[in-house]
Amino acid sequence: MAELTAEIVSVGTELLLGQILDTHAVTMAKLLAECGISCQRRHTVGDNLGRVVSTIRDALARVDIVVTIGGLGPTEDDLTRQAIAEALGDRLVLEPAVLERLKKYFAMRNVPWVVSNGNQAMRPESATLIDNPNGTAPGLFCEKDGKVVFALPGPRSEFNPMAQGFVRDYLAKRSGSKVIHSRILRVCGIGESAIEDSIKELTHAHNPTIAPYAKTGEVHLRLTARAASVVEADRLIDPLEAAVRAILGDAVYGIDETTLEAATLGELLKRKLTIAVAESMTGGMLGQRFTSVAGSSAAFLGGVICYSEPVKQALVGVRAETLSAYGPVSMESAREMAVGIRERIGSDFGVSVTGNAGPEVDRGAKPVGLTFIGIAGSDGCRVLENRFRGGREEIRNRASQAALVALREAVLAKPMPR
Amino acid sequence: MAELTAEIVSVGTELLLGQILDTHAVTMAKLLAECGISCQRRHTVGDNLGRVVSTIRDALARVDIVVTIGGLGPTEDDLTRQAIAEALGDRLVLEPAVLERLKKYFAMRNVPWVVSNGNQAMRPESATLIDNPNGTAPGLFCEKDGKVVFALPGPRSEFNPMAQGFVRDYLAKRSGSKVIHSRILRVCGIGESAIEDSIKELTHAHNPTIAPYAKTGEVHLRLTARAASVVEADRLIDPLEAAVRAILGDAVYGIDETTLEAATLGELLKRKLTIAVAESMTGGMLGQRFTSVAGSSAAFLGGVICYSEPVKQALVGVRAETLSAYGPVSMESAREMAVGIRERIGSDFGVSVTGNAGPEVDRGAKPVGLTFIGIAGSDGCRVLENRFRGGREEIRNRASQAALVALREAVLAKPMPR
Repeated sequence: MAELTAEIVSVGTELLLGQILDTHAVTMAKLLAECGISCQRRHTVGDNLGRVVSTIRDALARVDIVVTIGGLGPTEDDLTRQAIAEALGDRLVLEPAVLERLKKYFAMRNVPWVVSNGNQAMRPESATLIDNPNGTAPGLFCEKDGKVVFALPGPRSEFNPMAQGFVRDYLAKRSGSKVIHSRILRVCGIGESAIEDSIKELTHAHNPTIAPYAKTGEVHLRLTARAASVVEADRLIDPLEAAVRAILGDAVYGIDETTLEAATLGELLKRKLTIAVAESMTGGMLGQRFTSVAGSSAAFLGGVICYSEPVKQALVGVRAETLSAYGPVSMESAREMAVGIRERIGSDFGVSVTGNAGPEVDRGAKPVGLTFIGIAGSDGCRVLENRFRGGREEIRNRASQAALVALREAVLAKPMPR
Repeated sequence: MAELTAEIVSVGTELLLGQILDTHAVTMAKLLAECGISCQRRHTVGDNLGRVVSTIRDALARVDIVVTIGGLGPTEDDLTRQAIAEALGDRLVLEPAVLERLKKYFAMRNVPWVVSNGNQAMRPESATLIDNPNGTAPGLFCEKDGKVVFALPGPRSEFNPMAQGFVRDYLAKRSGSKVIHSRILRVCGIGESAIEDSIKELTHAHNPTIAPYAKTGEVHLRLTARAASVVEADRLIDPLEAAVRAILGDAVYGIDETTLEAATLGELLKRKLTIAVAESMTGGMLGQRFTSVAGSSAAFLGGVICYSEPVKQALVGVRAETLSAYGPVSMESAREMAVGIRERIGSDFGVSVTGNAGPEVDRGAKPVGLTFIGIAGSDGCRVLENRFRGGREEIRNRASQAALVALREAVLAKPMPR
């Protein structure tokens, strides 16, 4: 069976102008993927009849299934019904049972009846109605000339049940229950192009496929399989994951939603090791990332945000001579920060970050982006020098990411307890 | 002059399938509106050359300006350059200066050069390059047959400066300056419905309009005017802002992009006062927020992330008896943390946060969300008890927000220096 294709059309001026985020289209895109239907394009159009008609008509010329979202309400702006009718070359007809039900609904609530409410009882000739227990406007399901159009209402409480109920059931049946399922391998410590280069041979497969996505200081590899079920898709993905891991080794730090901070904490916990931080440039960002992980207190003991020289001296133990001879942004200060915080807090590892996040060259004439990261352990201290690009937050994010990558490497070098 | 029209094309399978939210398209839609250009459709297409080409070509047949977002990177998936060339009927040509710069960039960072990196030095014949100081791939600006195509990179730190710089300047000039201009008043310490209630009389105006948006622990009021220029729009907005401030007073902490941390630091700096933090539950989040502001080191001295009892005692000076009698999540511990960090660091204010962010009731049987915030100053220490709702990050965000609101109030009560 040829693969079924679909497009999504979101209708609404407030969506188009970005005044509200179009999360329904995202839900529908995922639903199509899960049902094994290839979603090829998404569109957002304002409340303009001509444009909605042409967008639906063009989509129908390209794909099997068009899903519209929004524009089914009672007001003048709600023109999706009429647009679908025009795109399909249908007349609009009245559904008396719906009109009856609407009138009763309004009477029951003592809301005065306005003629435009009757719009919601109209449907294109070739449409059947999708029941909407959570609102007044029914959804629409049209089959004509081998093509299918769905029209779903915009309010969340009406959209979700209809999408996950009627629409999902129909799509799963039509597509013969094929699913598209993904797994993400998260990789740190290697750049995007170097990763692509090393796994090049693996990228030509069609099922499963593999695609890289660059993130701040890490890369995500998305492995996607098409199969009759999620279990079968996983079975197809397993050997590809193994092949990637054989090439990239420890650089693969986690899968799916696992963050680098969670993975690093996991390695610390497995080895019953603890950590403390001395943060200057990142100002608490590293601590914040560690403590975002539930259960982090078993390995993360705390640290010092040493954003001034007296705090570096009094609470971390950096020597005044070091600060005056080399400046706070230096290899020497990073070393004393990492070693000092490890000793003061009594943790197995001490991590330090010092640098100039900008926007200006600092008093010590250290350029923007220059960063030193110290990793102190029982066997001494290693200091890394980096020069990060970007704005202030970008530089701080990259620095905290690099500190986690370096820490993870040091932790992985420690033996597992027996 | 006829109104200029535009469409936006977002490129990326990850976007199409809803794996990441398309916030850039929203930014661009707002920018177009602000420049008085009618954005008529938005499209999202996967990394498929044929579909990207036809989407751009169809859009060019309908509107004056097409803005593409994403797909400018070095990998095989990044095909926007080629798609624009095909849609415009252009050849791709090499820009030797860019190639040179890219090679230098990689050499400086000791990153091996991969041939595919060279893709980023190609451009459609009719394109000129838009400088990208924050990344490797330049943007594109193509004028041909009276139509304009922009190509902007996907990474946030590269997209935003290019959109708000080169693109905004060009669009404002082209559109002959009918503008829709907004100013945001940021309000803290009052809930959304209380705010709506108190400014009710102001919400009926049509130009400028006023609309509230609820954020985490604060509310943004968007004041929007339509005028011939930004200056004229500002002139319309000024009296409305004055009316809002007359009602809400000090609760309005800033305008537009001013964050609560930046506003609070501003009040500290005006009074030449300093601050230090002792963070347990927030684990560095407060420090991170303060230090995200350039120049924060003049008021923010640092602090201690005291995520374990020994660190609370050794580095902040919380007494062992207090911890054992009341537990670390208590009014008493919050007080000793705030007072202790103020004394140890010698700052004018000490701020503490201790609580249970979940997901489980902690050992001391303190319920999830229970939080104590201490604000210590020269005239003693005030402790606030809160019970925040939500997941772990939501609770931590609300706690750091509440700490800033309380601190700002304490700072505002201090006289200005003469």
